[in-house]
Amino acid sequence: MVSTRTVVLFALVIAIAPMAYTGSKGEDQGVREARAGIEAANAKFSEAYARGDAKALSAMYTSDAIALPPDSEMIRGNEAIGEFWKATRDSGVQSVALTTVDVERSGDVACEVGKVSLTIQSAGKEPTTAVAKYVVVWKRQTDGVWKLHRDIWNSVPATK
Amino acid sequence: MVSTRTVVLFALVIAIAPMAYTGSKGEDQGVREARAGIEAANAKFSEAYARGDAKALSAMYTSDAIALPPDSEMIRGNEAIGEFWKATRDSGVQSVALTTVDVERSGDVACEVGKVSLTIQSAGKEPTTAVAKYVVVWKRQTDGVWKLHRDIWNSVPATK
Repeated sequence: MVSTRTVVLFALVIAIAPMAYTGSKGEDQGVREARAGIEAANAKFSEAYARGDAKALSAMYTSDAIALPPDSEMIRGNEAIGEFWKATRDSGVQSVALTTVDVERSGDVACEVGKVSLTIQSAGKEPTTAVAKYVVVWKRQTDGVWKLHRDIWNSVPATK
Repeated sequence: MVSTRTVVLFALVIAIAPMAYTGSKGEDQGVREARAGIEAANAKFSEAYARGDAKALSAMYTSDAIALPPDSEMIRGNEAIGEFWKATRDSGVQSVALTTVDVERSGDVACEVGKVSLTIQSAGKEPTTAVAKYVVVWKRQTDGVWKLHRDIWNSVPATK
């Protein structure tokens, strides 16, 4: 005997299952999209950084972005942040290689956790490598481009 | 003479103005709500920290939280993070006073920028104060409580 209750439950499962699937699929796709956009932006960042291109770096941040470098006060606004990176480049940090560890997304905001490898050239010495970890909060612009909005990092333990 | 066009435009303004107002008001209220929830959580954090209460601190983080302390690898999961704070407390950092500088919100996710003042007691010395800045990504739980999901900080320049 198939009870009315079983039929109703079965109908509900049939009705809800594809919704749940679509929901999850849509969410995954949104995160994948964000991650692809962020990884593309990170590649662009590394290139602009290696050139010491303050203008290009500045354009990758939102106008009201905040960068929080270690041993520094907060830096507010994309132009000041572009100048900061140019000064860091000039001080001997030649290149930055960014690796995305994790991305989560809520609407037009995404939070990335990552690691960065820095190549440092001190005058008259062999280049050395330093590693840092970071959190970047990204904002998707109306044209689909992701821009850095909050950018903070710190060191990992020195390798022995 | 009042043209049909003027009447249509006027009707549109009447129809849209309250929506825009509600939209902005709703958004502001959402951010205010998040900020109040975060500041309440920060006060609770300081109390639990001062007690060295690893369990209470752990419960304030999401289960898949990541903390990124300076000179440390990432710490994953709320239990490990609670233990980290307990160990920091035991090492002589007696108290933390948190000041929220900025909050933005996207749905159930909020991003806080803030400053923290740490009181440090080294054996046989007068307590000293250190200041750090931080970014915390918070997640609103279904019960309305905000939990720390990403937590990263670093130092500000030493005062002269």
